[in-house]
Amino acid sequence: MQYAGGIDVGGTHTKIGLVERNGRILSQTRIQPDARGSFDGLAKAIAEALQRLHAEAGGNLSSIGIGNPGFTDRRTGMTVGGAPNVPCLHGNSLSGYLGSRFGVLARADNDGTCAAAAELAWGAGRGYPNFLLITLGTGIGGGLALEGRVVRGARGFAGEVGHFCVQQGGYGCVCGGRGCLEQYASASAILRLYQDRRRQRCLPLDPSLSAEGVLAAAAGGDGLAMAAASEAARAIAQVFGSVTNLLNLEACIIGGGLSQAGDLLLRLVREAIPDYVWPLFAENLRVLSAELRNDAGLLGAAALAWEALPA
Amino acid sequence: MQYAGGIDVGGTHTKIGLVERNGRILSQTRIQPDARGSFDGLAKAIAEALQRLHAEAGGNLSSIGIGNPGFTDRRTGMTVGGAPNVPCLHGNSLSGYLGSRFGVLARADNDGTCAAAAELAWGAGRGYPNFLLITLGTGIGGGLALEGRVVRGARGFAGEVGHFCVQQGGYGCVCGGRGCLEQYASASAILRLYQDRRRQRCLPLDPSLSAEGVLAAAAGGDGLAMAAASEAARAIAQVFGSVTNLLNLEACIIGGGLSQAGDLLLRLVREAIPDYVWPLFAENLRVLSAELRNDAGLLGAAALAWEALPA
Repeated sequence: MQYAGGIDVGGTHTKIGLVERNGRILSQTRIQPDARGSFDGLAKAIAEALQRLHAEAGGNLSSIGIGNPGFTDRRTGMTVGGAPNVPCLHGNSLSGYLGSRFGVLARADNDGTCAAAAELAWGAGRGYPNFLLITLGTGIGGGLALEGRVVRGARGFAGEVGHFCVQQGGYGCVCGGRGCLEQYASASAILRLYQDRRRQRCLPLDPSLSAEGVLAAAAGGDGLAMAAASEAARAIAQVFGSVTNLLNLEACIIGGGLSQAGDLLLRLVREAIPDYVWPLFAENLRVLSAELRNDAGLLGAAALAWEALPA
Repeated sequence: MQYAGGIDVGGTHTKIGLVERNGRILSQTRIQPDARGSFDGLAKAIAEALQRLHAEAGGNLSSIGIGNPGFTDRRTGMTVGGAPNVPCLHGNSLSGYLGSRFGVLARADNDGTCAAAAELAWGAGRGYPNFLLITLGTGIGGGLALEGRVVRGARGFAGEVGHFCVQQGGYGCVCGGRGCLEQYASASAILRLYQDRRRQRCLPLDPSLSAEGVLAAAAGGDGLAMAAASEAARAIAQVFGSVTNLLNLEACIIGGGLSQAGDLLLRLVREAIPDYVWPLFAENLRVLSAELRNDAGLLGAAALAWEALPA
């Protein structure tokens, strides 16, 4: 039996699993190494967990894929920025460490790119070789495929769709820019769009409210919540539409935690997209929900591992 | 001697040339078939002109490339829309006709995609396998390369960067959308941005003024002209920056007629781009002028012909 190792590195915990080429997860585990400790500590804890799963399964480890937060240099596998919650990754290469320890091909990439690889192989991207995936969570990430291949760009940083400018001079963003998609359609952005509207009308604010709660309120008929959801959807549609015009995409896929909060957002994006797409390009354009949910991170890492091996 | 045939189809005239693999134009001619007449008339006139050049040169015709206005379906070579100035192309395939008449591989593509192929092979894109080209003329076109390959997308329509939305609810556009780049940075847009500002101050309008004239006035110290040029440059920078974040580009290239009107626009775009790019992505990003000028259309078509043949 052959399987790839998938490693989904996060700030609070790291998931490790063995995944067959068809996307079936054979086994998985979760560890909580000290992400703020040393790189050696993190790397050894991951390697030991992977070794245990591998010994239990008793098959062939084909390759290893690692989904990292932040920016991973495609040539070195080194994290070169953008991973504040796992600072020990910075300047180090988990793929270099695990590849030599297990004697197999190991690759690392940004988690958005991994998610796109997984949707392409096993999810909503099957049958659509040209798509953009936007993952909506606390922040916004993403990845894209063209002609059936995941796009990485010059240094491997492609997919930073959260920092696509949708509004000249709009809200300031962590990246230093203004008007980024992340400021209009991430979970925190949707919450802010709603709270701003309530504040303007002197309505009380519920400090425990989440973006999912705003979407639920919108679906339930709350007009201000619907206005916030619509503004977020328009920003997403603007990006999907513009990129469709640029790349002649055939599918736009919404993933991440927020995509699981009912289908309101998907419906609003679908309604708004024709305003941003050349009609000829819109003809066969599909707007879809990502299919891989709870295990998306782990599957994304494993998809990276399989992508590197010819079928 | 081996050469490709390049055909640059336009509304008023069509250029035909023989081009070596290194981009040297051996010979060229220009015909003015009736673009509003029959497809057969257009196709025969082009074939005869190409045949004459080929007979004079007396070498091997490797392949034929055709740069079309509008949208060309990559599978059929058929023009399926967006070519109002050459209506007889619609529903027909020049590449099908010329390929079978000359017995060689013939391919057709949008002129923006052709221009990107030429810059990649022989122009500013050499050494930058990941770039976006924006061509500024009466309208705005473009094309892009990723990992050293020209991007075509699902049906071959990729590169419509003129219909990238830079302003929610902005100026209406011919595509039916609003706020498209073409409404802010094409020649007619720059002229309008300037005239609007003059009108607002009750200053007289010069009906013979061109966009090149506006750029020259801006370079000469006219404040309103500079404001118009800056607004155009910001829109261009917004697109370059957003797409760099999405695709991790290493070069942004400005081409088309307007790119030849001094270097003011290039300078303004360079100044504005950091406002739209994640700093790590900006580190090695180049903003360049296209190198292929007068013969860009013909070379673009020929680049398409050579691109199809392994080196």
